[in-house]
Amino acid sequence: MHTSETEVRALLEARVECSRDKDVERLMSLFSPGIVYVDVVPPLRITGRDTVRANFERWFGEYEGPIDLETHDLTVEAGEDTAYAHMVHRDTGTLKDGTVRSVLVRSTVCLRRIEGEWLITHEHVSVPIDPATMRAWQPQE
Amino acid sequence: MHTSETEVRALLEARVECSRDKDVERLMSLFSPGIVYVDVVPPLRITGRDTVRANFERWFGEYEGPIDLETHDLTVEAGEDTAYAHMVHRDTGTLKDGTVRSVLVRSTVCLRRIEGEWLITHEHVSVPIDPATMRAWQPQE
Repeated sequence: MHTSETEVRALLEARVECSRDKDVERLMSLFSPGIVYVDVVPPLRITGRDTVRANFERWFGEYEGPIDLETHDLTVEAGEDTAYAHMVHRDTGTLKDGTVRSVLVRSTVCLRRIEGEWLITHEHVSVPIDPATMRAWQPQE
Repeated sequence: MHTSETEVRALLEARVECSRDKDVERLMSLFSPGIVYVDVVPPLRITGRDTVRANFERWFGEYEGPIDLETHDLTVEAGEDTAYAHMVHRDTGTLKDGTVRSVLVRSTVCLRRIEGEWLITHEHVSVPIDPATMRAWQPQE
């Protein structure tokens, strides 16, 4: 496997570990200062580490314990200094009120090697909208 | 500007022209055979040119005339053979029933240079979900 791809796959695994451990500090070290983050929830996009950090703290705060990100259908394409990956994640965790939330999201991660180090410069996470109801859609189990 | 970036920007402009002209043939020539497409609407993702073509024909068929994609906040990062771009699009057009639809979507486009030619290998288009209502969210005008 090409070295870039190996490095990017390791970073993606670290990203999953950070969500499970709710380790905001380590998670933020994976993002570039100018990160452009597109989340499931409003607004359209947020930019910069401070805003993205606050968004992850909000998300982590919704859950009582760890958040598991199960990765499906992962594709990684990595050049010398530019890379991207896309996957489906099943996010599972126990909310503060004790109910279990389990949701399938589509995730795209774009990266640059900056001063020798791969960093996430853009991430896009979403769920589909059912056009008949304009509500969030999930596959039938 | 680096040659790769110039080429990718030209491809993105062609992509906008294809939507305005509803030119499915030219549009499909921009996608790789193994394209993984993540759309605003279900399912989670679709793969392959035939499925993506049918999805564009469905989308084009909803509108009476052209579909305008106004591009905002475009970022392009292009290496030798791997590139990505992200932007906000305002999609505007007149539906078959005469009403005008105008919607802001988040768009991420990932590309590879395959046998010398840039092709879109992955595209992710979405709108946010308001967590209070679980309905599609748009900014207030």
